[in-house]
Amino acid sequence: MSTRIKLTLSYDGTSFCGWQKQKNGVSVQGAVEDAIFALTGERVSVIGSGRTDAGVHAKGQVASFDTGANIPPDKFYKALNTVLPDGVKALSSEKVSDDFNANRTAKRKTYEYSLYISDVEEPLKERYMTRVYGDIDELKMRSAAKILEGEHDFKAFSATGSSVKTTVRKVYGIDVCQSGEDIKISVCGNGFLYNMVRIIAGALVKIGKGEITESDILKALKTGDRTLLGETLPAKGLCLLSVEY
Amino acid sequence: MSTRIKLTLSYDGTSFCGWQKQKNGVSVQGAVEDAIFALTGERVSVIGSGRTDAGVHAKGQVASFDTGANIPPDKFYKALNTVLPDGVKALSSEKVSDDFNANRTAKRKTYEYSLYISDVEEPLKERYMTRVYGDIDELKMRSAAKILEGEHDFKAFSATGSSVKTTVRKVYGIDVCQSGEDIKISVCGNGFLYNMVRIIAGALVKIGKGEITESDILKALKTGDRTLLGETLPAKGLCLLSVEY
Repeated sequence: MSTRIKLTLSYDGTSFCGWQKQKNGVSVQGAVEDAIFALTGERVSVIGSGRTDAGVHAKGQVASFDTGANIPPDKFYKALNTVLPDGVKALSSEKVSDDFNANRTAKRKTYEYSLYISDVEEPLKERYMTRVYGDIDELKMRSAAKILEGEHDFKAFSATGSSVKTTVRKVYGIDVCQSGEDIKISVCGNGFLYNMVRIIAGALVKIGKGEITESDILKALKTGDRTLLGETLPAKGLCLLSVEY
Repeated sequence: MSTRIKLTLSYDGTSFCGWQKQKNGVSVQGAVEDAIFALTGERVSVIGSGRTDAGVHAKGQVASFDTGANIPPDKFYKALNTVLPDGVKALSSEKVSDDFNANRTAKRKTYEYSLYISDVEEPLKERYMTRVYGDIDELKMRSAAKILEGEHDFKAFSATGSSVKTTVRKVYGIDVCQSGEDIKISVCGNGFLYNMVRIIAGALVKIGKGEITESDILKALKTGDRTLLGETLPAKGLCLLSVEY
């Protein structure tokens, strides 16, 4: 009899080549699978809610896997933490029904992009935030963020060359919150295209600096033209906050 | 003609063996002196407001040095940042009078100790915070902190074996501020004994957990008995916020 376990994970993306297993480099998925093997002797496939790129962090990535091990499901995460490497830890675990699949049954995901405004690189912020400089208008960012809410074709907001069936996604909400020199952009949606949050964050920064306008955002949504938006911001500012099922 | 420069520095202590130059390991002082040499060709002595231990961070360490280089004093930090290694950057620079000495003329320093309450290690907090667990009473911590304010003999709050002329220091204020599962303890004083802030933070955690009482704090101040207090908390949770002159 095997049990399906839902695992919530947090990791510092700096330490990993991303979620997905790769030939070279240590992936989060590989680290978790290796830890389960060390604990149970079982070689299982761990399914994540989605891939996070190299350098992207997570406070609440969700994964699922099946195990025949005799460890109480709600204690599994503690056992796992004794063998997981630095940089990734499990925050909770629970038994779920066999139709739960961390990837396919995910309903909403929330990502956060963290920025700081400074003329100088600040070493204590560099690991988890991206630096921007100059005058940034938070209210302009908030206003433009509203345009992106709802169901849209986000083709212009995805990395070129990514192949997906549809580029239509539903964004439930985007919040822009400034505190002193720090700005956090949180985006909640039913799914995200490749680099979508990093491109949204980049476009909102351009809006905040007055380098593009709301009409550019509207045009990008309409035409799918990636070049109307700003650059894709670095991975290190991005964090997967939570996944809902 | 040489000019005395006051430099404000921020660094991620993880990358360094502490402020002070050592035979082995990369020190912040050494990194700054090397950067000045790369920039000006001058081998100067950089004086810090005080030593920070290996692993201790800084948002506003202050240093001073003399230079004959023809770089505008208020632009010096920008030039320096082009040659400083990752993990340390200069936030500002200015010309000061020749009686300024970053160490001897410092009047007040403010340190912050950062904690998070969690049953599980959280990778995204581990670099700059120390984890504590169980029930912690913030109000008890605040109340006990008040006892330490003012001029006292802080002998019990210093690492054993440190030799200083006097163990009397003046603490201008200690703030304990909880936000969700995070607790920050900031301590402002005219000077600090070796490990003093880390011992204060450890004692306040013990107070918050109910493992020691305010009378233990009073007794420690009176007797100088280090064993009445909790452990010295790890360096990584400590950050030098600012130095006033």
